[in-house]
Amino acid sequence: MAIKVLDEKAISDLPKSLKVNLVNSLSGFKSANLIGTTSKQGINNLAIVSSVFHVGANPPLIGLLMRPHTVVRNTLQNIKETGVYTINHVHKDMVKQAHQTSARYDANESEFEEVGLHPQKSAALNAPFVEESRIKIALKVEQITKIPANKTELVIGRVVEILLHKQDLHIDGYLDIEQAQSVVVSGLDSYHETFRIDRFSYAKPHKALSSIWGASVDNEL
Amino acid sequence: MAIKVLDEKAISDLPKSLKVNLVNSLSGFKSANLIGTTSKQGINNLAIVSSVFHVGANPPLIGLLMRPHTVVRNTLQNIKETGVYTINHVHKDMVKQAHQTSARYDANESEFEEVGLHPQKSAALNAPFVEESRIKIALKVEQITKIPANKTELVIGRVVEILLHKQDLHIDGYLDIEQAQSVVVSGLDSYHETFRIDRFSYAKPHKALSSIWGASVDNEL
Repeated sequence: MAIKVLDEKAISDLPKSLKVNLVNSLSGFKSANLIGTTSKQGINNLAIVSSVFHVGANPPLIGLLMRPHTVVRNTLQNIKETGVYTINHVHKDMVKQAHQTSARYDANESEFEEVGLHPQKSAALNAPFVEESRIKIALKVEQITKIPANKTELVIGRVVEILLHKQDLHIDGYLDIEQAQSVVVSGLDSYHETFRIDRFSYAKPHKALSSIWGASVDNEL
Repeated sequence: MAIKVLDEKAISDLPKSLKVNLVNSLSGFKSANLIGTTSKQGINNLAIVSSVFHVGANPPLIGLLMRPHTVVRNTLQNIKETGVYTINHVHKDMVKQAHQTSARYDANESEFEEVGLHPQKSAALNAPFVEESRIKIALKVEQITKIPANKTELVIGRVVEILLHKQDLHIDGYLDIEQAQSVVVSGLDSYHETFRIDRFSYAKPHKALSSIWGASVDNEL
């Protein structure tokens, strides 16, 4: 097996597009979500992101890293102006439509109409869910922090509404996002479905792990 | 299809363990990585995390969110004291060993020895890679930011060394982490392998996407 070693200089010297593809793959697989917002002018905006991540459960917080001057600038502006947004899982049957939202549409064009997904009202706040998504989350901005290292902005939101399919929810609270056919992203543009290896018990020193898959299936919260 | 709606009060009223499982599933699939550090006393520490995420390619930055008072406290302390650490992908054939590193071992026990993985020296800095991992990254701390919303700490590191298998690297810089059998996590404890759906072209308004999978396979950087 041929190993390739890239040191600091070799990384720095990579042509820009190669570096972007490589470094985007390094952190591992990424979540695939559609961010729904509404502008002050009332136009619904939808943007695919792979930068949503778990921050904490108590209180329920989710992070979203955004680059201000890219195609997501409208989304970031709407989040700042309205203080609210939605996160919607991307599933296997909508990956092309989801990826297409990354095109640079004008601010007065709605990505919903352009790609053929449908906005759905939230009972909690004024930002659109994606009707076709099986897992929909409405959030209020908790804090926005600038990351000086590269001028990105970290949006942390508090979850105020969740819509899901009952059959995806296990008795212990685990949400089966694989059964929901949520996809993952690698690099900038590769989409993958998943197959479960196992769920493992809480690890303790000097004690063998056991599988907890099956134990919590087919129940209802 | 029965839809379940949880409003702000319903979410707040969830029993704690249910809430932890549910909210950990909401953001979507998570990367699975092992963080390698060395303590001031010279003990190698290894901790699985699902909170590694891409921050930017220029400069090459990777984020890692940590909770200071949990089982990863030794890792966070080592990172703060030494300023360096490694990120190593978790693959299908090592998920049990990787999950076992989350047990609360004493600070003088090395998770490497306890779970049967092997430390490997980095040429760039004093933190151990995981020999068994196919994708190994050495990082220097760029900044550590406290997240006031829930007292977690965001560690952002700059990539200074990358070890990978040549056969996983495409001509355009895309690293095939699926071929490397890197896994993903959902919730707290579920591990999944992936199967590619497709790689899509850069999206442009009013233009159909095309597949770019295949075009960049079997080449070498």
